[in-house]
Amino acid sequence: MKNYFVSKSRRLRGTPYTSRIENQGVTAYTIYNHMLLPTRFGGSLDDLYQHLKDHVQVWDAAVQRQVEVSGKDSTKLVQLMCCRDLSKAKIGRCYYAPIIDDKANLINDPVILKLADDRWWISLSDSDVELFAKGLAIGNNFDVNIFEAKVDIFSVQGPKSFKLMEKVLGPKILDLKFFGFDYFEFGGAKHLIARSGWSKQGGFEVYVENTEAGLALYDKLFEVGDEFNLKPGCPNLIERLESSLLSYGNDMDIGDNPLECGLDKYVSLDSNVNFLGKEILKKIKSEGLKKKLMGVKINAKEISVTGSMSLIDENNKLIGELRSGCYNPMFQKVIGIAMINKPYFDKSQSFKIDINGHTFDGKVCDLPFI
Amino acid sequence: MKNYFVSKSRRLRGTPYTSRIENQGVTAYTIYNHMLLPTRFGGSLDDLYQHLKDHVQVWDAAVQRQVEVSGKDSTKLVQLMCCRDLSKAKIGRCYYAPIIDDKANLINDPVILKLADDRWWISLSDSDVELFAKGLAIGNNFDVNIFEAKVDIFSVQGPKSFKLMEKVLGPKILDLKFFGFDYFEFGGAKHLIARSGWSKQGGFEVYVENTEAGLALYDKLFEVGDEFNLKPGCPNLIERLESSLLSYGNDMDIGDNPLECGLDKYVSLDSNVNFLGKEILKKIKSEGLKKKLMGVKINAKEISVTGSMSLIDENNKLIGELRSGCYNPMFQKVIGIAMINKPYFDKSQSFKIDINGHTFDGKVCDLPFI
Repeated sequence: MKNYFVSKSRRLRGTPYTSRIENQGVTAYTIYNHMLLPTRFGGSLDDLYQHLKDHVQVWDAAVQRQVEVSGKDSTKLVQLMCCRDLSKAKIGRCYYAPIIDDKANLINDPVILKLADDRWWISLSDSDVELFAKGLAIGNNFDVNIFEAKVDIFSVQGPKSFKLMEKVLGPKILDLKFFGFDYFEFGGAKHLIARSGWSKQGGFEVYVENTEAGLALYDKLFEVGDEFNLKPGCPNLIERLESSLLSYGNDMDIGDNPLECGLDKYVSLDSNVNFLGKEILKKIKSEGLKKKLMGVKINAKEISVTGSMSLIDENNKLIGELRSGCYNPMFQKVIGIAMINKPYFDKSQSFKIDINGHTFDGKVCDLPFI
Repeated sequence: MKNYFVSKSRRLRGTPYTSRIENQGVTAYTIYNHMLLPTRFGGSLDDLYQHLKDHVQVWDAAVQRQVEVSGKDSTKLVQLMCCRDLSKAKIGRCYYAPIIDDKANLINDPVILKLADDRWWISLSDSDVELFAKGLAIGNNFDVNIFEAKVDIFSVQGPKSFKLMEKVLGPKILDLKFFGFDYFEFGGAKHLIARSGWSKQGGFEVYVENTEAGLALYDKLFEVGDEFNLKPGCPNLIERLESSLLSYGNDMDIGDNPLECGLDKYVSLDSNVNFLGKEILKKIKSEGLKKKLMGVKINAKEISVTGSMSLIDENNKLIGELRSGCYNPMFQKVIGIAMINKPYFDKSQSFKIDINGHTFDGKVCDLPFI
């Protein structure tokens, strides 16, 4: 596949870490929330994948913007947007909570941080949820304050992230439970650090508000990181697919509802809370799904998914569309995430797919892969 | 400046024209409304600029997404979002109309098309206005239908666009007035065509709803275009700056209001219509601006603006920030657009700017440059 350059401009904002990662050898970006997200460093994606599973990486994850919602009606507004019951949410905890509209269409799948009883951060995937929140707040006359907080996350991911962070911040960091957060001092400022991140290799996300102190922490990690084989990295397509971490805009979008995306665990239809699309989701659930996000395995050595790719059965009938995929060294196949149409949900369903003019065989499977 | 690749994925959608422009030699993209917008072809930006001013180009402008708002309360909702009085808007006309929130912050600066008394297209710059519109509609209980219409614009720009379009679509296309639109048949479908586009060299935008027929028209233009020296092109930084066409996200953003951006002509404070932020804008107007978008000329041969760049006076006081800029062959200087702080609005104001470690002199000027 031919490569194309990205044209930088102020509209595609850099992050406080951009100059560092450019010195550290970044070679490619994607754009996410109108900002630069590194996608490749010098080495191959395979090498970065294996390194992430064995060692530790620091990622510039500042594109994960925070919409801050505070004020008297903040909890009401956050709950109205989220189909997950947040009524028992605790301060100091993160919650994965899909945001949907009144038709139950997916708008975002953020992680939500409860900072105080009347103060929340919505840690976004790639869409302008700030605008949705503002529209709802204005229309409902809610007493809230909504803005993009000045927070630039960097992420520390990989099995050795625990030892690395302990070395720099002390043993208290190891007390953090998964999806818990707390404040840790470094460089003269307190940093909100969560035990979270967009890999399944373990790690932390540092929510940097004080840029100078955050950069000092970033630099300190690389200063002492050699013994843990620390490298700069970025979300890894191979790892995130193998771990079945969904990507909004790739695997799911505003044309899908959370039940179709297998997010049932985060859809609180039996709760007492009021959220958009609740009655529609109940109806969808009772009528049954028309399409469903599933895994696929394809007997191919490579693929580049840059748009939806058709999956057809032996009678040339369309059974669904592949939305993400890449070769996985462990499975020694291409694995991917596809939206499969009714009635082809059966995991023994086989299909054919055209990759660069050649036909390959594949099979549908359940998620997660492992 | 080092170049970086863009990592394609389904989340950064291509357009119906992507395969064509990749065959036609596109070399770089930016991302706009989560889609690929071509920014460079084989030749230099200078050559493309001169070609655009002398001949005619076809641009893939599908990133200019259409939010369709229809239904009983559609006019009320569109007006609520826009600070320009649309009460006398006519079917068949385009209106440049800034969208602001309740604090008068700029959210987008679209062109709005009135398709019928109860049907509008909001032709977007780079932000998810669909989400803002949905939030407002839900909160206000408006009877509207809001969705992203399946419309993929290509743009025909340059002085020879008139002859080219006449040759393919007949002389009726020449009756279109600036910012007027009408329907024209080609390839078995009717296409909405407006006399508009993001250059000041004249031209048309084809709002393609029937993809197959639209691609046939695209191909036909290139089939007959040789006599007009037709080339594939894209919005040109040199031309758009020279023509003072503002770019949302670059020159102005959610931290600015429309008066600060010099959009007074499109702010109907004396009208009877109801829109968000109206009272706040009246207050801002009576109190006077604290910052103002202005032109700058810099005695330099090149610049690459990838973020805000500080402008300082002879006492090292910050007078404002450069947001866009590039070398202009006509002025034989760098020209750019900057947000200038009070009290430095005077157009004789001089400043210094650091470009790659070297200091250059510049002067503030009024917009437009010519």
